[in-house]
Amino acid sequence: MLQKPRGTRDFLPAEMAQRRSIERRMRDVAASFGYGEVVTPMFEEQELFTVKSGEGIIGEMYAFEDKGGRKIALRPEITAAVVRAYVNEAQVAPKPLRWFYFAECFRYERPQKGRYRQFWQFGCELIGADSAAADAEVIALAAELLNCSGVRFVLKIGHLSPMKHMLASLDAVEQKKVMAALDKRDMELLENTLASIGHADLYEPLVRLITAETLDEVFAVTGDIPEKARIEETFSYLKAQNIPFVQNFGIARGLDYYTGMVFEAFADNLGAENQILGGGVYRLAHLFGGKDVPSCGFAIGFDRVMVSLGEIVPAAAPVVAVVATAETRGPAYAAAAAFRSAGITAVMDLMDRSFGAQLSSALKSGASYAVLIGANEAAAGTVTLKNLAAASQKEMPLADAVAEVINGTC
Amino acid sequence: MLQKPRGTRDFLPAEMAQRRSIERRMRDVAASFGYGEVVTPMFEEQELFTVKSGEGIIGEMYAFEDKGGRKIALRPEITAAVVRAYVNEAQVAPKPLRWFYFAECFRYERPQKGRYRQFWQFGCELIGADSAAADAEVIALAAELLNCSGVRFVLKIGHLSPMKHMLASLDAVEQKKVMAALDKRDMELLENTLASIGHADLYEPLVRLITAETLDEVFAVTGDIPEKARIEETFSYLKAQNIPFVQNFGIARGLDYYTGMVFEAFADNLGAENQILGGGVYRLAHLFGGKDVPSCGFAIGFDRVMVSLGEIVPAAAPVVAVVATAETRGPAYAAAAAFRSAGITAVMDLMDRSFGAQLSSALKSGASYAVLIGANEAAAGTVTLKNLAAASQKEMPLADAVAEVINGTC
Repeated sequence: MLQKPRGTRDFLPAEMAQRRSIERRMRDVAASFGYGEVVTPMFEEQELFTVKSGEGIIGEMYAFEDKGGRKIALRPEITAAVVRAYVNEAQVAPKPLRWFYFAECFRYERPQKGRYRQFWQFGCELIGADSAAADAEVIALAAELLNCSGVRFVLKIGHLSPMKHMLASLDAVEQKKVMAALDKRDMELLENTLASIGHADLYEPLVRLITAETLDEVFAVTGDIPEKARIEETFSYLKAQNIPFVQNFGIARGLDYYTGMVFEAFADNLGAENQILGGGVYRLAHLFGGKDVPSCGFAIGFDRVMVSLGEIVPAAAPVVAVVATAETRGPAYAAAAAFRSAGITAVMDLMDRSFGAQLSSALKSGASYAVLIGANEAAAGTVTLKNLAAASQKEMPLADAVAEVINGTC
Repeated sequence: MLQKPRGTRDFLPAEMAQRRSIERRMRDVAASFGYGEVVTPMFEEQELFTVKSGEGIIGEMYAFEDKGGRKIALRPEITAAVVRAYVNEAQVAPKPLRWFYFAECFRYERPQKGRYRQFWQFGCELIGADSAAADAEVIALAAELLNCSGVRFVLKIGHLSPMKHMLASLDAVEQKKVMAALDKRDMELLENTLASIGHADLYEPLVRLITAETLDEVFAVTGDIPEKARIEETFSYLKAQNIPFVQNFGIARGLDYYTGMVFEAFADNLGAENQILGGGVYRLAHLFGGKDVPSCGFAIGFDRVMVSLGEIVPAAAPVVAVVATAETRGPAYAAAAAFRSAGITAVMDLMDRSFGAQLSSALKSGASYAVLIGANEAAAGTVTLKNLAAASQKEMPLADAVAEVINGTC
């Protein structure tokens, strides 16, 4: 028996209805913030991703050659592609550009529980604005997108400048070692690393920085760094919108990629692999041959959000089963068309079943209503509308039946 | 400057809004017929496609090896994957299964005008029903999906049995030659081919068959073949639903794949590459290791439909620009949140512009309304709602402003 490729999934209608219901909420929220959708190709030249993330990413991608011998790869993430599209097509557009995407990404790793080779990201990129208001908008949008899904999460917000300021006297190799220890949240490793490079004196202030719970505590460690006002302003805008968050100036991920605010969100109920969102302020366009432009964005791990939500019951739309005989197919088609035009799902028997068998099949299928069209109804130009849950029924004109189903009055 | 891969496209928000507006109509129609969405992986094992379409398809696919050395390919079409998913996951589900998909496919050919290496298909598969009513439902759904998009098209419907019946005395190689001539609609080639294989006598009846305009003309050529009643019943169901179509019993595409009804649709305004839909009755599941099951489905070339439609103007939703000062950001955030909660797009300045510059930027951006919150409004707990098209404005409580925008009364 042929199988799906390892590490991939099939989604059948019940699960897709759940996923689309959450996706639709996220689309509505993004639109309400003025963000428009962009779609980029499923694959890009490998160089796009190595320029952004380094050569190491090639081993983690589905990489292959196209007919022209060009090295391409299924996209491992979307931000690089969106910025490439911006550089190619939209550099002259009035700023800022507010873009979102909802799309598949691919990673070429050993499949593990909850990590698939094809996965979905919902992300936003704000291009061409460089202000505390811009940072606050993107973070507010990120929070609202997660809120609308119903997922329970903690939002952590930091900024890379205080950390960079404190590590300024270290060379690049030393910085990397320290960041690795910070990224693992391993305080013993951090202490040993600092000692080994002759900076034991940094241990105590670094611990104070990454455990600081207020901005005052942060700037007590770092002094008045140039970014102080911008960070305070951003936080004040988030507080003005009552966005719950905790500050974390120990976020060390992407230190060579992000250039300012960084933020992450973690689901309450997912165990170790619980990060569901990551983002920050970055500059990429100039690396791809465009003009330098300030940008801020994030991506939500849609699959993890769905796991965190568990089973959802999407709003159930009524389903009408049109039950007819071979002789009443004409009015039955008209009835089905009338319900469908009104936005109501109408199904008809395709198995040449008897009138009674159609009705019991409708009951079993979970349909809300049956519309019965036997010889009497066909002759009278009526239908019999049967509420399958209430087991009540009434003969009436077709238009009345459609109205009763729409209004749920039957 | 980094570029998108050859033969692919970027879609920016204006174009995506158009594409999603048509996609949404198609999704609504499919749902109204009781079809639920399925999503399968972006790539499959190559064998899935060669089993269905022959080894020749490998040269037309993005084919590569995964880390386990398995030969995989970006899907060139979706039906094979949907049936594979059915075999893997849904063979025991009650029949019939009504499934649809909207997804990207890939072909690895020289890019040409209007033919892209990544393209979209909207398709439906009805699995497990084998009746004239089933055939008629799928064709009616195909027609309704095209109708809802607004595309103008001709639907052509045929059945493979009359042709197969007439070519029954030919061997496989001879049949293939004749079908190739038929597929090209090249009557001279057809005549020469038939003469060369010693079947010149078939020329006249074949021409009568493929030019027949009524079923009576078809069966006058073929006699009473076993499928006659089923074909007549299907056509009568289509006529009962007033579905415009022309019959074409010369459809020769997929003779070794389709097993009954076949149908195609052609856009009125697309020139030579004008086929926008193809489908028919088929059996695939047993080839993939499942139990044999009757199936009927079709795929719509979504990109060609969009080209045929030309520029669309999707229903314009109102956009509200919230204009504030540094001091009134608090009430401005509250105003933006109120509009967004009501499903209305609200945008705020991110460029630290002055009050006046924000207003003129709102005008230029095409926003429908501005909500002005200066010191006076902030003190009074009001907003000033300005209709940017009418240039009229009025101070009022926030809730009233939201209501006026929703009702379009301002």
